[in-house]
Amino acid sequence: MDAAGNLRDIGEPEIDGAFLASGGVARVHDALERDALPVIDAEGLRVGAPIARPGKIVCIGLNYRDHAAESGAEPPAEPVVFMKAADTMIGPYDEVLVPRGSVKTDWEVELAVVIGSRARYLGSREEALGVIAGYAVSNDVSEREFQLERGGQWDKGKSCETFNPLGPWLVTADEIADPQALAMRLWVNGERRQDGDTKNMIFDVAEIIRYLSQFMVLEPGDVVNTGTPAGVAMGLPGQPYLRAGDVMELEIQGLGRQRQAVGQA
Amino acid sequence: MDAAGNLRDIGEPEIDGAFLASGGVARVHDALERDALPVIDAEGLRVGAPIARPGKIVCIGLNYRDHAAESGAEPPAEPVVFMKAADTMIGPYDEVLVPRGSVKTDWEVELAVVIGSRARYLGSREEALGVIAGYAVSNDVSEREFQLERGGQWDKGKSCETFNPLGPWLVTADEIADPQALAMRLWVNGERRQDGDTKNMIFDVAEIIRYLSQFMVLEPGDVVNTGTPAGVAMGLPGQPYLRAGDVMELEIQGLGRQRQAVGQA
Repeated sequence: MDAAGNLRDIGEPEIDGAFLASGGVARVHDALERDALPVIDAEGLRVGAPIARPGKIVCIGLNYRDHAAESGAEPPAEPVVFMKAADTMIGPYDEVLVPRGSVKTDWEVELAVVIGSRARYLGSREEALGVIAGYAVSNDVSEREFQLERGGQWDKGKSCETFNPLGPWLVTADEIADPQALAMRLWVNGERRQDGDTKNMIFDVAEIIRYLSQFMVLEPGDVVNTGTPAGVAMGLPGQPYLRAGDVMELEIQGLGRQRQAVGQA
Repeated sequence: MDAAGNLRDIGEPEIDGAFLASGGVARVHDALERDALPVIDAEGLRVGAPIARPGKIVCIGLNYRDHAAESGAEPPAEPVVFMKAADTMIGPYDEVLVPRGSVKTDWEVELAVVIGSRARYLGSREEALGVIAGYAVSNDVSEREFQLERGGQWDKGKSCETFNPLGPWLVTADEIADPQALAMRLWVNGERRQDGDTKNMIFDVAEIIRYLSQFMVLEPGDVVNTGTPAGVAMGLPGQPYLRAGDVMELEIQGLGRQRQAVGQA
C-alpha cells in the first residue's frame, strides 16, 4: 500500500526471507519513487500474510506485567521463549479453527517483529534494531488446555493449524518511529477484550531481539511474537473461550486491523 | 546409496518436502531399477542432512523411562512436545558448536521420523505409519542450563545453531521392518555414553505421529525427534558436558553412523 492508500503490484514473486535479505525493501521503495509500480484493484483478492514461509516463529511469553498477573505467573526475570510451528501462519482475514477436542481456544494480540537480516550474538540494542525489517499485527492464538495442562511445554497449544494470523501489512521499520509506543486492541464479537500498549512490555523489542540472538540464529523472514497484554479469555471472568461463529478483530496503531471468523476444525 | 553400497546421483534438485509429496521416493526407486542413476564418487564431497529445509522439527521429551529417571522426572502420562528451530539442522559429519556462554551442552541420540505426506487428525496407528517417508539418525543437541534454568520452556536450549545433526541416510520406511527394534548408541571421545533400543520408547513411533496430528498439521519434510535413552551428560557422574575438541559418534541400527567434532561458537 502506498502513502495515498493505493495497493500496488510490487513486481516481486514473493515477500519472503530471500526478498528481505536481497534488499527487496529498497528495490520496492525505489520503484515506488519512480512511479513504476502499477496500482491494483484488491476487490475479490484474498489478503495473505505479509511474509511468506517464515523459517520460524519465535514467541515471548508473559511479556506484559498485567498478562503475567492474569496468568497467575510472576513477571519473568528474563524472556520466556517458545515456538509456534511456522505453518500456522495465515492471512489477517482468514478463518481461525478451534481444534478438535478443544474447549480453551484463546486470543492474543501481539506486535510481531519480522527479521530482515541474519542475526547471531548481537552485541547491542542498536545492532538488534538494525536487523529488523518491519512490524505487523499478530494473533498468537493459543489453546490453554493443550498449552498448560498436557505436559507443561507450551508449543503443543500454540502450533495448531491457523493459529497465527499475521498482517495485513508488513510496515517497514523506518515507518515506525517508536515500536514501544503503539496502542493495541482486540475485540471478540464487538466487545473489547484487550486494550494495551507496547510501552508496557517487560522486555522491549531491542532487548528481545538481542537476547534471542544469544540462543539461536535469526534469519531473514523469521517472525518474533513479542507477547500479549492482559485481557485473554483465560484471565477473564467466566473464561469466555472462542467458539465457532465468534469473530475476532484486532489492531495495532499504525499497523492495521485484522478480522477473523472462528470455525471448527 | 544403493544395495551394493554405491552412491548414486538421484537426478533431483533436492530431497525436500516437495520431493517427498510428489512421489519422489517411487521415482528414484524406479530409476534405480532401470539402472538409470549414475554412480558418483563421494571423495571430497560434504554430506548434508538427508532432508532439505524441513518446515519444522518437532521433538518428544522424556520418551524413555531410563532417561526420564536420570532427568529427575516422572515418566510422562502423554507425550511431552517441544520444538527445535528448523535451521539447526546440519549434516551428520558437520561441526557442532558449543554456544557462547554455555557450560552445559549435551548430546542425545534419537530416532528421527521424516514425514512423507500431510497428516491432520490421524484416526489410527496404521494411518500414522502410512504418512512416514523414512527414518534417520538424529542428534538432539541440548544446552541444559538454557533449557531448564532460564525460564522453564525448553526451546531456548534446543535451538542453538548446529544443534541438530541429521543423517547420513534417509532410510525409507519400507526398508525398516520394525522401527521399535533398533539398537542406538552414542560415544564421546570413544567412550560409550548411550546404549539403548527403540523398543524402550514409552510412546512408540505410530502413537507419536498419531498424537502429534491431533495438535498440529504435519507436512512432508517435517522431522520428528522421538526422544533419547539414558546416558546424557546431565545424568552421568560428574556431568561431563561437551567442550570444544570433543568428538561425538552415534549410530542407530540400519540407519548409519554420525561423527561430529565439537567447536566453540
